[in-house]
Amino acid sequence: MSRSFSRSLDLFARAARVIPGGIYGHTHPAATLPMASPYYATRGEGCRYWDADGNGYIDYLCAYGPMILGYHHPEVEAAAERQRALGDCFNHPTPLAVDLAERLVALVDFAAWAVFGKNGSDMTTWALQVAREHTGRKKILRADGAYHGSHAWCTPGHGGLIEEDYAHIHGFTWNDLEDFERRLKEHRGQVAGVIVTPFHHPAFGDSVLPAPGFLQGVEAACRREGVVLILDDVRGGFRLHRGGSHRLFGFEPDLICFSKALGNGYPISAALGRQLLQRAAGRVFLTGSFWNNAVPMAAALACLDVFAREDVPAKVAATGRLLRAGMERLSAKHGVPVRYTGPDAMPFMSFADETNFFRSQTFCKETIRRGAFFHPHHNWFLSAAHTPADIEETLEIADAAFEVVADEFRRPGKAV
Amino acid sequence: MSRSFSRSLDLFARAARVIPGGIYGHTHPAATLPMASPYYATRGEGCRYWDADGNGYIDYLCAYGPMILGYHHPEVEAAAERQRALGDCFNHPTPLAVDLAERLVALVDFAAWAVFGKNGSDMTTWALQVAREHTGRKKILRADGAYHGSHAWCTPGHGGLIEEDYAHIHGFTWNDLEDFERRLKEHRGQVAGVIVTPFHHPAFGDSVLPAPGFLQGVEAACRREGVVLILDDVRGGFRLHRGGSHRLFGFEPDLICFSKALGNGYPISAALGRQLLQRAAGRVFLTGSFWNNAVPMAAALACLDVFAREDVPAKVAATGRLLRAGMERLSAKHGVPVRYTGPDAMPFMSFADETNFFRSQTFCKETIRRGAFFHPHHNWFLSAAHTPADIEETLEIADAAFEVVADEFRRPGKAV
Repeated sequence: MSRSFSRSLDLFARAARVIPGGIYGHTHPAATLPMASPYYATRGEGCRYWDADGNGYIDYLCAYGPMILGYHHPEVEAAAERQRALGDCFNHPTPLAVDLAERLVALVDFAAWAVFGKNGSDMTTWALQVAREHTGRKKILRADGAYHGSHAWCTPGHGGLIEEDYAHIHGFTWNDLEDFERRLKEHRGQVAGVIVTPFHHPAFGDSVLPAPGFLQGVEAACRREGVVLILDDVRGGFRLHRGGSHRLFGFEPDLICFSKALGNGYPISAALGRQLLQRAAGRVFLTGSFWNNAVPMAAALACLDVFAREDVPAKVAATGRLLRAGMERLSAKHGVPVRYTGPDAMPFMSFADETNFFRSQTFCKETIRRGAFFHPHHNWFLSAAHTPADIEETLEIADAAFEVVADEFRRPGKAV
Repeated sequence: MSRSFSRSLDLFARAARVIPGGIYGHTHPAATLPMASPYYATRGEGCRYWDADGNGYIDYLCAYGPMILGYHHPEVEAAAERQRALGDCFNHPTPLAVDLAERLVALVDFAAWAVFGKNGSDMTTWALQVAREHTGRKKILRADGAYHGSHAWCTPGHGGLIEEDYAHIHGFTWNDLEDFERRLKEHRGQVAGVIVTPFHHPAFGDSVLPAPGFLQGVEAACRREGVVLILDDVRGGFRLHRGGSHRLFGFEPDLICFSKALGNGYPISAALGRQLLQRAAGRVFLTGSFWNNAVPMAAALACLDVFAREDVPAKVAATGRLLRAGMERLSAKHGVPVRYTGPDAMPFMSFADETNFFRSQTFCKETIRRGAFFHPHHNWFLSAAHTPADIEETLEIADAAFEVVADEFRRPGKAV
């Protein structure tokens, strides 16, 4: 049962010399599970991947979202391969850029146009600029604790920032429409845009679905005040609803940003917007060396084909419901209460009455050594490649992990 | 000889409906050559590519830089394919991230560490933040007219900006050390970093190599004032010198940013820095969904293998010298004086005493219809896939194009 991470640790020791922090950014779950989590991946297939030591895992992180159809999805890979044989990076866009824009615009109800980038942040930051260009105003409202990317205006980091980076970024409390209206009033006539995620998924915190009427209230206020409503659907897009996550929650933004699941791991992001914003969008410069690369667009078109044929969000949600039901059953069985929040397709599980994540860390450590990868303090992701049999296998692993948690945190004298 | 762009134009008509501007950003040479340039590419091979109408071109733009080894370089593609069979996008980095960091750190003389992103802008913006974190200061100096990416602090665009975006970004005149010292003095004690390109390549302007002593003077001033010197080698990197373009010009920055040619078209960027900056670098959050993707890293490692074995910059410069010599000969032959500036590997040609680019546009239009793609107002790029025979074929085309320019602008009554 015990697993070695020695090759991961050797690699990390090498990395620590030549990469600041060894592993930076969001891809370092091992930071909170030292020596008890893989640090490096080597291959993937379906809903499973293998680490540098050859340990295999049923994966509940999906590369932090992108792998919506599973690693090495044959149809996506075949489409990418066909384009690769022609070429990827050119002086000009390829016809695929037009195809993809048309397909996405047809898919997203309110959208009249689309642009593409590489990172989610490329699009969320540009969306703010479009809102400013359209309104001639400066200020942006965002929910406290929401993640909208790694750029200075929204980074969860502290290093290297200057106050001008976020001088006109103002917070409001998620699900508190009164607070939102208060902030809007406070900056009346100066707010260019409001950026929201479809549900609240703060780092190191439980997920919170939108309260009934909250996003609708935000939308109404934006309309009333001429404010651009931006949906950051980078994390949830195509996993919650194939037409944009606003469809699941019954509201309508003016701009939507996609990335992660759009290309099943191929680097691409997109922003789509209303006709009303097309002129402003055309006036905000955007470009990048690889933004018209054709292979990720071929992959995205293949994903859209799959999404059109199969109800991926329904499938992922159904599998996610099995996982949730199983986890809640095991939690009860072992007398270890959990909070299981967020949509079933991308849930977050924490241990009730715990804020230090010790139980989460033990739980994940124990599932990891038994072959199921869960992140202790980031929401999980399911993919269309997960089957009920995978969930069953996972729940057997979780059963043992819950038992260890129950055991460990029942010991007298154990810090809780 | 005449070429049809009808499929490009049909695609553009579709695009104009669903993409703001139809084609945005830097990939739209057709904007200044309407109906006389390809708008969409479909495939590439070596130093040639084909557009949506099936027209083929000897390519002197190399996808605005990335294609340093030519389209479909067999060794790069094989390395990418090997990694692709294992996987690309994971929960963790792959061992290739460590290999690539080690390889680059060994290659770049002053560098102790490396990080990776997707866009050049990811790295230039992050480099500014590292400089700010390291120094605790706010201000950044940059040469007037230099391109450092599409982010708000440096975008050549105007839309969607607020003054806070560039409140602490100050210009200086390229090659004017006195002006540089004056600006540095003006903001003494407040300057975190200076960002320079290895040579000056303003949009719509002649390229200007560094004057003897200029970059050395900038370096000395940075050392004296404790300012971080950042080399934006996104455009020139690996084309001018395999160890960083500072080597060609005899100075040493503290941080260097690479992107375009690093992966021969695969989306990757990198920043490398001195040991002194490693702590600050570790404190500035950076991340992106696809930043650890393994396939572009495999491609980059294969490029570095080629760079280690073949002196690509020397090869490209030699081919570039043939092009320059030929162009200057043809210019003289046709009595149409040109200014041919910048390094031979990435030159810029303009027509003497002309600032409206009419002759450049005619020239490019005429080479394009004969099968050689040149950009009228952006520097050109050569690749290692260009052979002397390709240059010879190109010069025959250029001969005819110069003749048209000579003819057209000699006509009485023609606006010049």
